[in-house]
Amino acid sequence: MTNQYPILDNISIPADLREVDQDKLPQVADELRRYLINHIAQCGGHFGSGLGTVELTVALHYVFNTPDDRIVWDVGHQAYPHKILTGRKDRITTIKQKDGLAPFPKRCESEYDTFGVGHSSTSIGAALGMALASQIKGEDRQCVAVIGDGAMTAGMAYEALNHGGEVDNDILVILNENEMSISPNVGALTKMLIKIVSGRTYNRMREKSKRMMRRNSWLWRFLSRWEIHTKGMFVPNTLFEELGFHHLGPIDGHDTEQLVNTLKVAKDIKGPKLLHIITKKGKGYKPAEEDPIKYHAVSPFDPDKGMQPKAKPSKPSYTAIFGQWLCDMARHDNYLVCITPAMREGSGLVEFSKLFPKRYFDVGIAEQHAVTLAAGMACEGIKPVVAIYSSFLQRAYDQLIHDVAIQDLNVLFAIDRAGVVGPDGATHAGSMDLSFLRCVPNMVIMAPADENECRQMLYTGYEHTGPAAVRYPRGTGPGVAIDSEMTALPIGEARRVRKGNQHIAFLSFGGLLDQVLLAAEKLDAAVVDMRFVKPLDKNMIQKIARSHDLLVTVEDNVVAGGAGSAVNEVLHTLKITVPVLNLGLPDYFQDHGSREEVLAEAGLDSDSIRQTVKLFSQDKAQNAQLVYLQNHKNQHL
Amino acid sequence: MTNQYPILDNISIPADLREVDQDKLPQVADELRRYLINHIAQCGGHFGSGLGTVELTVALHYVFNTPDDRIVWDVGHQAYPHKILTGRKDRITTIKQKDGLAPFPKRCESEYDTFGVGHSSTSIGAALGMALASQIKGEDRQCVAVIGDGAMTAGMAYEALNHGGEVDNDILVILNENEMSISPNVGALTKMLIKIVSGRTYNRMREKSKRMMRRNSWLWRFLSRWEIHTKGMFVPNTLFEELGFHHLGPIDGHDTEQLVNTLKVAKDIKGPKLLHIITKKGKGYKPAEEDPIKYHAVSPFDPDKGMQPKAKPSKPSYTAIFGQWLCDMARHDNYLVCITPAMREGSGLVEFSKLFPKRYFDVGIAEQHAVTLAAGMACEGIKPVVAIYSSFLQRAYDQLIHDVAIQDLNVLFAIDRAGVVGPDGATHAGSMDLSFLRCVPNMVIMAPADENECRQMLYTGYEHTGPAAVRYPRGTGPGVAIDSEMTALPIGEARRVRKGNQHIAFLSFGGLLDQVLLAAEKLDAAVVDMRFVKPLDKNMIQKIARSHDLLVTVEDNVVAGGAGSAVNEVLHTLKITVPVLNLGLPDYFQDHGSREEVLAEAGLDSDSIRQTVKLFSQDKAQNAQLVYLQNHKNQHL
Repeated sequence: MTNQYPILDNISIPADLREVDQDKLPQVADELRRYLINHIAQCGGHFGSGLGTVELTVALHYVFNTPDDRIVWDVGHQAYPHKILTGRKDRITTIKQKDGLAPFPKRCESEYDTFGVGHSSTSIGAALGMALASQIKGEDRQCVAVIGDGAMTAGMAYEALNHGGEVDNDILVILNENEMSISPNVGALTKMLIKIVSGRTYNRMREKSKRMMRRNSWLWRFLSRWEIHTKGMFVPNTLFEELGFHHLGPIDGHDTEQLVNTLKVAKDIKGPKLLHIITKKGKGYKPAEEDPIKYHAVSPFDPDKGMQPKAKPSKPSYTAIFGQWLCDMARHDNYLVCITPAMREGSGLVEFSKLFPKRYFDVGIAEQHAVTLAAGMACEGIKPVVAIYSSFLQRAYDQLIHDVAIQDLNVLFAIDRAGVVGPDGATHAGSMDLSFLRCVPNMVIMAPADENECRQMLYTGYEHTGPAAVRYPRGTGPGVAIDSEMTALPIGEARRVRKGNQHIAFLSFGGLLDQVLLAAEKLDAAVVDMRFVKPLDKNMIQKIARSHDLLVTVEDNVVAGGAGSAVNEVLHTLKITVPVLNLGLPDYFQDHGSREEVLAEAGLDSDSIRQTVKLFSQDKAQNAQLVYLQNHKNQHL
Repeated sequence: MTNQYPILDNISIPADLREVDQDKLPQVADELRRYLINHIAQCGGHFGSGLGTVELTVALHYVFNTPDDRIVWDVGHQAYPHKILTGRKDRITTIKQKDGLAPFPKRCESEYDTFGVGHSSTSIGAALGMALASQIKGEDRQCVAVIGDGAMTAGMAYEALNHGGEVDNDILVILNENEMSISPNVGALTKMLIKIVSGRTYNRMREKSKRMMRRNSWLWRFLSRWEIHTKGMFVPNTLFEELGFHHLGPIDGHDTEQLVNTLKVAKDIKGPKLLHIITKKGKGYKPAEEDPIKYHAVSPFDPDKGMQPKAKPSKPSYTAIFGQWLCDMARHDNYLVCITPAMREGSGLVEFSKLFPKRYFDVGIAEQHAVTLAAGMACEGIKPVVAIYSSFLQRAYDQLIHDVAIQDLNVLFAIDRAGVVGPDGATHAGSMDLSFLRCVPNMVIMAPADENECRQMLYTGYEHTGPAAVRYPRGTGPGVAIDSEMTALPIGEARRVRKGNQHIAFLSFGGLLDQVLLAAEKLDAAVVDMRFVKPLDKNMIQKIARSHDLLVTVEDNVVAGGAGSAVNEVLHTLKITVPVLNLGLPDYFQDHGSREEVLAEAGLDSDSIRQTVKLFSQDKAQNAQLVYLQNHKNQHL
């Protein structure tokens, strides 16, 4: 078998790449793309974005002196080729797996990963911070942010541009327009980019720029030396120019030579500049080019055959249950609207968006706006459902407090990916929402233990007047039958699930109930499905506390300030001094792994729960969860 | 004495205003301005912004059919004239006082207050939400957002523009450029606006537009009827046009007639439009025009004499202590930088900004960017101090978690206005930071009980490697001597302040220590100044818990998930079942009032603390804080 990667095999770090002749770079890109396809097909992971940035990655590491020059990848879906070129080629198939490579750039993994990412639109601010820091330290380096057009819709990207356009600094922002983030992009910005790209000006200028580049750019060098800014050369005034950036491009992001030449020029231009490149998500792998949404993230597949249709899952995911409920509810109520910050697929909204296009609002990657928009709508008697991931809700925290909760507005938050998320790692973990929501007055907070409860809670939150949140986990539940009829639960009422002896009682919040039940069987313990994190069922807590020797709270949220902590507060208010074991996620950021692995690491599988309870039951046993985990060699403790 | 307000006296609501002849409107504006000056000089409050929007307020309520048409005031500093014209003239001198008018628009106060504000940059999203909701309900109304150029630097304003420019909706955004938010504005956007305003085009066109208006605009009517958009008529392409908005103006925001005529035209133009007006903060009151920062918010003063220099306060505020520490620290460490989201004066940074201009970064009203910029800098070994108000930090919550804490970066958060803030009301209360910070791994959180502790904690947080926060209250502390020498406190170590009997021990967090000590004197209770909310001093808690019958935690943060809640968690972990009374802020949003009034309402003055403890000490007394407050007629419970 011939060697598939004759040049790539000799590149282990960017310094090796920089030894390659410039005219061989397109071949490097081809090999890199082939490597990526073959290996990600094996192990799964983010796929389409990386294929779109192969040439850019090669060009960046060729032109810039990494790691001393800083490249910040926005979001990081697209950074697999970067990982391959920066010393991690052999480990790329471990990506997203426990103890394997992280799904996104991560500072502790490589000196080439200058900034940990995962959430969108942080790159410009981070690169600007690095550039300003280098200025203060008197260090001479280039700082580059690579950001997609989808990520450019987020407010914080704009804030950073506004700042970057003012301070006199040489950062380079590469706007990678791939016409597609995870969902199709929306917003006026997208329209503007399309206008630029489709415009006569662009097409004419693209040809011209190509010619200039091919001549190896004496003209370019002349221009940049004289600081006659390239502004206006290729495109008419743009938003970026209004904000003080030199707008270079658009150029073809799959033309390695043009990229290299343009980057060389951009490097020498003083002041903030934005290079606009056009790429294709999934480039070079036909099925991914044709269906970029399907190939955004993949499970292992045969590259020759493409991804096969998945067997219909036996159980619906919580996401699907939400999507179904939303459609059902919308049929009942014409005033229901749903708002998503660019997460149509991930939040289960495809069906709804097709059935009710006028009541479906994809606002782009703009969590803050999503929530304030909902608040404005609620003022007018429309009922908005904000569909959002737990960790992305962090970005709309002020809007939830200031615009919704203070005004006690009638908004339902459908919070997906709550608790342990797994392969996407700490950035995507929904491990704090119970804590940061519980302290907000006026909130009603529910955590379903199974599929049917999820549906009924969504209905309960919808019918409730005022802000309410239902937070449900990633993936599937225990598989209980779903009642298509919708019945509102009494607000703040728990339900007893299991009678046990009078020794131990579990108060379980949300999706870990099945694990709790397994543990409780062996311990013959009582189990309550608390359902509501706020308001708590104080009567139930009182009754249970007075009739048991030990309470155990269980939640897939950090212990600090979480649901168990709410139970403690109630007990103290009631002056009940029963021992309580608060089980939940630990006080460190857990790395990626499968959902099961991450839960086990936290001691929240049924076996760990049972053993920790036993440990705690022993006389004077302190720090039971800690001791249990230390006994089990949790390296973080 | 002649009647100062012959027309205004007959206007109690906007419908009355709309009965006035258009040519009398300038006189209405004059009377309104006079009314505002005379009354706010009496009672104090936000001053300069309102003077700048007198004509706009008159014109808006004249042209639009309020309250059925919706006007959303951004931030709300400038809404005093609006309050005067909408049924609250007689109560305007009660503004910011307990049980008086709210400092900002507030939905429950008036049907003309369409959206509660306080934090900046929410108006466009809210107005867009209202417009979309009206569309869905088939109601025909106009929705107008009034936003300053400072507020336009915030990401969420951009997110809303990006969305508004895409959906087909008739919202009107009025960009009130007053060249001055609270601090002087910064950023590329400001430069752009200055360019527009100072440009030849504007000056020429302003004259032309004035002439057109005077002719009562047959041309305008023609243009708008034919939907030949006014785009490009007055100014070249702007950022707003790039985002899909028709850009009208700039026009003189103090020319009532021009405003009325332009608004009438704008009303009829389809699609999203932005009217750019130029106003002067403090307009019509000379001292305020000359020193808009000083007159942004005023204490009562004699309008003939202007504000007199304040007597030098006997004690420095926490803000001043921070400002002083920052300058001292910057002299020791060239790698210290300070970042503020447009709060130079409020955060005590004037001195620092003058002494260290190259290490001072005012990023505009852009909390998200402020924190991510800090993260980027920290990656390069620079130590950023982010100076931010507690309630504004909510807007950078994701950036604190995702960009700083997950990466364990070396950033110090100096959190001002933590706890009860007082006259600015619920929107500005720093009542949740301990809860929303405590759940974040890697954070060190400190709360000083006095001035010297504040200084030493800032130093401690600065010297600590990793994310740290010092949260200190508004106003002054107990007045202890400040040690100019800086000594780092041992991380996680509390200090005993008072020995008492073995019955009651207070664990006090932060600024309420003086109240706690007063209560403790009478109860002969022990007192510990906990200092650290995270990590907690577990040894101290254990010792105190084992030697007392009752623990009382006290904090100026909501009880839910706060510092007391952390104590509960530790006790349960240690399997110590001592009764604990958690005292803190209640689980509802407290209205404005003086800091003392708001604390008393929460039962956190020394007298209330003492009585609540007594109540709780009685056998079986449950819900002590609740019972105490109910006994004292707290209407919220």
